Amino acid sequence: MFKINDNYLKLPGSYLFSTIGKKVAAFQEANPDKNIIRLGIGDVTQPLAPAIIEALHKSVDEMGKAETFRGYAPDLGYEFLRSTIAENDYKKRGADISADEIFVSDGAKSDSGNIGDIFSVDNKIAVCDPVYPVYVDTNAMAGRTGDYIADEQRWSNVIYMPCTAATNFAPELPKETPDIIYLCFPNNPTGSTINKAELQRWVDYANKVGAVIIYDAAYEAYVSEPDVPHTIYECEGARTCAIELRSFSKNAGFTGLRLGFTVIPKDLKSNGVMLHSLWARRHGTKFNGAPYIVQRAGEAVYSEAGRKQTAEQIAYYMNNAKVIREGLASAGYTVSGGVNAPYIWLKTPDNMTSWEFFDYLLEKANVVGTPGSGFGPSGEGYFRLTAFGSYENTVKAIDRIKAL
Amino acid sequence: MFKINDNYLKLPGSYLFSTIGKKVAAFQEANPDKNIIRLGIGDVTQPLAPAIIEALHKSVDEMGKAETFRGYAPDLGYEFLRSTIAENDYKKRGADISADEIFVSDGAKSDSGNIGDIFSVDNKIAVCDPVYPVYVDTNAMAGRTGDYIADEQRWSNVIYMPCTAATNFAPELPKETPDIIYLCFPNNPTGSTINKAELQRWVDYANKVGAVIIYDAAYEAYVSEPDVPHTIYECEGARTCAIELRSFSKNAGFTGLRLGFTVIPKDLKSNGVMLHSLWARRHGTKFNGAPYIVQRAGEAVYSEAGRKQTAEQIAYYMNNAKVIREGLASAGYTVSGGVNAPYIWLKTPDNMTSWEFFDYLLEKANVVGTPGSGFGPSGEGYFRLTAFGSYENTVKAIDRIKAL
Repeated sequence: MFKINDNYLKLPGSYLFSTIGKKVAAFQEANPDKNIIRLGIGDVTQPLAPAIIEALHKSVDEMGKAETFRGYAPDLGYEFLRSTIAENDYKKRGADISADEIFVSDGAKSDSGNIGDIFSVDNKIAVCDPVYPVYVDTNAMAGRTGDYIADEQRWSNVIYMPCTAATNFAPELPKETPDIIYLCFPNNPTGSTINKAELQRWVDYANKVGAVIIYDAAYEAYVSEPDVPHTIYECEGARTCAIELRSFSKNAGFTGLRLGFTVIPKDLKSNGVMLHSLWARRHGTKFNGAPYIVQRAGEAVYSEAGRKQTAEQIAYYMNNAKVIREGLASAGYTVSGGVNAPYIWLKTPDNMTSWEFFDYLLEKANVVGTPGSGFGPSGEGYFRLTAFGSYENTVKAIDRIKAL
Repeated sequence: MFKINDNYLKLPGSYLFSTIGKKVAAFQEANPDKNIIRLGIGDVTQPLAPAIIEALHKSVDEMGKAETFRGYAPDLGYEFLRSTIAENDYKKRGADISADEIFVSDGAKSDSGNIGDIFSVDNKIAVCDPVYPVYVDTNAMAGRTGDYIADEQRWSNVIYMPCTAATNFAPELPKETPDIIYLCFPNNPTGSTINKAELQRWVDYANKVGAVIIYDAAYEAYVSEPDVPHTIYECEGARTCAIELRSFSKNAGFTGLRLGFTVIPKDLKSNGVMLHSLWARRHGTKFNGAPYIVQRAGEAVYSEAGRKQTAEQIAYYMNNAKVIREGLASAGYTVSGGVNAPYIWLKTPDNMTSWEFFDYLLEKANVVGTPGSGFGPSGEGYFRLTAFGSYENTVKAIDRIKAL
């Protein structure tokens, strides 16, 4: 008799954004006349930049002719994309990462979930609290997190690193030593960042205790301040302790196109075994490459026109972030984030819980945000708004919130 | 100190097709003047059909305009594609599968590897021998296969179901009861099929012993004989015991575009828990949908023009299969497959091992095939050729082999 993976049964409720989606759909059905503005899920709204569209059309034409048709892609991704990434995202920032240390994938969500495959179940993870729920949920599926304690909204075998107002929404080095440390900067959901010296402390710590850092830099394109690192490989020693996850979703609007990559330096080893080899084996066995046309679209992001056009989109979203941050602050809300990240983190008013504020905002202002408690126990009493809406909707949403 | 997943270290060598790729590259480098014909990896060579190219261009244009831009896709895939699949691949064949039992993915390779996530490590798998190596390799990564016994080229805790000339290259019901049974028909690599009554026996057996069948039907479009099932759901009772994996790679040339789907009927349960729910949770947590433009391309496969054009491609490849099968037979080879599948399975001459014949064919005829032993111990002494080359290359390759 076949047996299921019981760890799945320990997961509370459904994935955060599925729950939100269902709540919003029910509200819209009950109130068909209401114009709902979605500043909840971190999905972009600006269309793909012209340089990207052009690259897609061109490569689609290649796929329609026998002489230029491409079948299975190379396991690790096309060389043209990997070398472009190595040059632009690493060499130009003084980070020592070569093209063959880059694994192209269908997105950072897949990678952040799948990366656990190459580690033993017997590892203790540490996560920022609050943080992107995929890290904890996928470790729960793997059986690494112990049991879920519903009362406390936490797992028994996870090291939570509270990121609260008291810590400036950054984690402190944990008291208990972890094996795997998930860091996400600029942070989702708080929009907080740490500077290079602070990140260096994490790298030094990981090397000292023999931990591996899984560094999610999906939002690096939103960094605006000079002292905030764009990649963990700007730090000394990161090649022996860090895996970096990157995405094309937020810097170039690929949420519906799907492209990301993972960096595993060849110096990152466990008893002489390169994690690079393990991930290469996983990639080659359980994945068959990102679509050729999408890899060409990714390459176009780094072209002169692509860079200019995507920078304009990021500036557009960051202007929204400013509208939200300043609008809410002027209305008396306590806000942070939104300077080096497209997320604004706000304290719920009147001691409402995160979900109470979610319902309140949906019903009274017809604005959708994301409850902070969905990102971890220390997110309770907080709320995330994203800058990824249109400018017009963002202004309208903030006006509605101010009028409450 | 972090610990790796030691199961990876048990895997022998590298993934079959990586090894072949390296051998071919080395030969080409040493012999730059030789014109190598590749009939090894099952990659298509015909360009995407015009109806698919048109759908891609149209949807790319949508992605370039704010009003029609699409971000994150729905977790399970777009409704337009899921309902098209349900209608064409299932309802029209009298199979009772609804759109919400279909999970759209980036391909059957990913799904056949990832499906193991929802099962306990404590399940014993049964596989056809020989078969597509991903099933065994991914179960080895999960720790389900015991230890690799190099001398015997087999894992200690896997039930191998020999598919040899004696069994007409089909598996027989295993003596030891398995928990998870992988079936692949039309079979990769042997090209064999079983008829509906024979498949019904497997369904009845699985329901009786409480096993789940993972049915890989990636090659169903190549079925030409009327009594060979296109989907396992043509059989009575399959809804309570079978998961089906499907691909757009071989019926429509999507190897470089990446699209597939997995069917999990809601009646498939373990102690009342629907596997459908578990896979939905995995899909929603570790995956973010196939690209919108690729899902539109998939939809176009089912349009009137798409159906006609892809049917012509399949006929083209099946004509190649005929050229290979009849050419080799006339040269005295013992061959099978190639009637309901794009693969031809041949016995190596003069008692050569599969890899000896690989080297012989590469060196003497400059033709690349796939060693049968790479698919399982019973594949030793056999060799796979694919019909996915161009007609001209296929004829040339067979002429070269005949001339040996």
